[in-house]
Amino acid sequence: MQNILSMSDLSNEEVYQLIKSAMSYKSGQKTSIGKDKFAVNLFFENSTRTKSSFQVAEMNVGMKEINFEASTSSISKGESLYDTVKTLESIGASVAVIRHSKDRYYDELINDDMNIHIINGGDGTGQHPSQSLLDLMTIYEKFGKFEGLKVGIIGDLRHSRVAHSNAEILTRLGSEVSFGGIDEWYSDEFAEIGDHKDVDQLCREMDVIMLLRVQHERLTSNESKKFKKEEYAQEYGINTRRVELMKDEAIIMHPAPVNRDVEIASDVVECDKSVIFQQMTNGVYMRMAMIEAVLEGDKVNDLINSEYKVISK
Amino acid sequence: MQNILSMSDLSNEEVYQLIKSAMSYKSGQKTSIGKDKFAVNLFFENSTRTKSSFQVAEMNVGMKEINFEASTSSISKGESLYDTVKTLESIGASVAVIRHSKDRYYDELINDDMNIHIINGGDGTGQHPSQSLLDLMTIYEKFGKFEGLKVGIIGDLRHSRVAHSNAEILTRLGSEVSFGGIDEWYSDEFAEIGDHKDVDQLCREMDVIMLLRVQHERLTSNESKKFKKEEYAQEYGINTRRVELMKDEAIIMHPAPVNRDVEIASDVVECDKSVIFQQMTNGVYMRMAMIEAVLEGDKVNDLINSEYKVISK
Amino acid sequence: MQNILSMSDLSNEEVYQLIKSAMSYKSGQKTSIGKDKFAVNLFFENSTRTKSSFQVAEMNVGMKEINFEASTSSISKGESLYDTVKTLESIGASVAVIRHSKDRYYDELINDDMNIHIINGGDGTGQHPSQSLLDLMTIYEKFGKFEGLKVGIIGDLRHSRVAHSNAEILTRLGSEVSFGGIDEWYSDEFAEIGDHKDVDQLCREMDVIMLLRVQHERLTSNESKKFKKEEYAQEYGINTRRVELMKDEAIIMHPAPVNRDVEIASDVVECDKSVIFQQMTNGVYMRMAMIEAVLEGDKVNDLINSEYKVISK
Repeated sequence: MQNILSMSDLSNEEVYQLIKSAMSYKSGQKTSIGKDKFAVNLFFENSTRTKSSFQVAEMNVGMKEINFEASTSSISKGESLYDTVKTLESIGASVAVIRHSKDRYYDELINDDMNIHIINGGDGTGQHPSQSLLDLMTIYEKFGKFEGLKVGIIGDLRHSRVAHSNAEILTRLGSEVSFGGIDEWYSDEFAEIGDHKDVDQLCREMDVIMLLRVQHERLTSNESKKFKKEEYAQEYGINTRRVELMKDEAIIMHPAPVNRDVEIASDVVECDKSVIFQQMTNGVYMRMAMIEAVLEGDKVNDLINSEYKVISK
Repeated sequence: MQNILSMSDLSNEEVYQLIKSAMSYKSGQKTSIGKDKFAVNLFFENSTRTKSSFQVAEMNVGMKEINFEASTSSISKGESLYDTVKTLESIGASVAVIRHSKDRYYDELINDDMNIHIINGGDGTGQHPSQSLLDLMTIYEKFGKFEGLKVGIIGDLRHSRVAHSNAEILTRLGSEVSFGGIDEWYSDEFAEIGDHKDVDQLCREMDVIMLLRVQHERLTSNESKKFKKEEYAQEYGINTRRVELMKDEAIIMHPAPVNRDVEIASDVVECDKSVIFQQMTNGVYMRMAMIEAVLEGDKVNDLINSEYKVISK
Repeated sequence: MQNILSMSDLSNEEVYQLIKSAMSYKSGQKTSIGKDKFAVNLFFENSTRTKSSFQVAEMNVGMKEINFEASTSSISKGESLYDTVKTLESIGASVAVIRHSKDRYYDELINDDMNIHIINGGDGTGQHPSQSLLDLMTIYEKFGKFEGLKVGIIGDLRHSRVAHSNAEILTRLGSEVSFGGIDEWYSDEFAEIGDHKDVDQLCREMDVIMLLRVQHERLTSNESKKFKKEEYAQEYGINTRRVELMKDEAIIMHPAPVNRDVEIASDVVECDKSVIFQQMTNGVYMRMAMIEAVLEGDKVNDLINSEYKVISK
């Protein structure tokens, strides 16, 4: 793989390969595939989890980080994203992890002259492949398969970066996806994939309850006014009563940050069925696997270059 | 030690142990106790000295840093401090150094599920243990003891993070503490510990003059209007004349940043009696000792884990 | 060299030495001269290129970085630049790279008590030696000499940090410098060095076309109103037609960030004659050479110190 931009670019085989690689890192395997290479994390939107997780993953594979702060960069002098990334490539970055509010921002970055690996850390409301992959890893780690699993996705379907692509990839891998939450958020693109169900019913039937964060900051002011935390929690939130409805082996997932007492009651966040913080731990291992996947192809080139240098001396 | 939160949690023995450990680092001892471990520095208030000093200390013991900027984190999406710290633990941080404006912010972070060492980098106006400990180290380095030393603390007693806890710990270690500066800043909690004296008298009698920064940014607007730099310097500031009053072996300390020509005249900042920049140098070694102290206990766990992995393979 | 502050401090011999050292790093030579040493990058003005490039250079020579954000530092509590730098020295930094808007900010930092190497990363509109040196390296790499080369500097002469010092050093090294661009920007200090010519003529005659960025953010509001991108591009910008006027071996340089379709047409930025991104690559190697140059003198001291420690044990 040269870049990892979107879940739809990945074959089922590639997904399984990434999961297996991540799981072997989790069980203690080491790698130094990134030794003497530089990564840069360009986050044009706020993030704790994803940026920090990529940082740790980069250091774990032996890479060093070029520290880039979007707010103090030449972007503020009007430099284009292309020129910024090309600059970072020129000063030695091998991998750029980018989060940007523009859908498919990466289209302008991919050409024959751009000699850097792009990993999409989230674009617009489009894709967030490292989140999708760590979700898949967490499910696979629990159930050992995707075929036949019932997955219920509940929450802010419209604004989530992962809802649609998770639904698609899970369906492709053989799971059966349903949805829950506010009716108006269940648009046609989701209706094509699965049914909309009542949250109590989802709790009873699903193997995986996948919660989405209510993105208060993306609600219109009218929606914000109408939105009542308590009502949402009552009707769609996971709480002790609903946890007790769930099957013995079922798990609760959430990409975080969590709105405590909105989509999930505070006292359930760390309950036995919750794998929320385990998802974060898995995220580091999955990101190591992703970086390994894009760097793998360089090995041959690195070898040729170093031999060339020896010969040309 | 699992965490280092407050001077009052530390026994005299622990304080001496930290000082000795810091002094042995200063004299050239190396450690790699933090190898393959991650630290994160969460500073929700401005800082050059403390944050940079912890960074250097972390790297000196072999740790890598997860780069966390409070202003671009998910805290701005409303995430709680608990969830942020739990997230950083989940992605692999072993140590979190935290500065926060809330008194005892750390109370909500300490529970059985939180598997990360917290080092308090300053809370509200409560505590700032790494500053207190580096102050103690600097005094001990000079005098080889605390018993019988006369220490005068002069300046903005009300707003200082270290004034009260330094006064307490020094008293506990056998020093005799007095105070100086604006009368209204000398509240009852200080009166219980030591007398209020004229600055000239303090200069004549003390072994240690410990200055505090006038925290202009924390004065009320009324106080600010009344406050005259020149008058303060005249009445309470250390200058050449007052340095000459001091005993031969006496030292001048200041936690910095210094307000030049307010609490101390500019031409005295780097005079022979001043140990202000030496305090900063000592700060790195003390922070190494603190990190070592919290990581020490992990050694046994790390050993058990790695043996478990070998056995379970 | 103790510090690198200004091109005018460097002899021709020192310039050649830095270029040769940078070129040997580019051809694969390694160094660990910065091992166990710390660098700090204090950028009080926005920068992607220079800051990131210094970071990579520092890591390439084995240094670790103390992460300093001007906006969250104690500078915002009113601390002087001197005290900030002295602080960073005290906590262990060996090299400080500083960019500051004040001309010759470094004058106040250089004294006998300041035991840190200062590398000027750009001051006011005065100097930007690492940019000048990487420009010289790029020219030397292409032509193998400076004597007799014709260099045309086109653009915002008034606001450029490098225009005047590049013109001076190139003249000193034996090149013949001319200027182009808006007439009013061609002040007396430039007229003393070389002629002002029409851009078409420069394209026909020069070996090196050195473009400068139009610094929109530094134009007065009146200038901004009058300034028309299309007119500037038409009259002074480099485009396909003008590239075709150029000599076979001639090159186009630009310090970047580029204003595409102002000083250079977008489709020419990566043309065969352009060495713009190559300049950035060279910048890393030149900065390694600069850091090596200032650290070189420490070797003797380091040796003495470590022997002293062994003896004193």
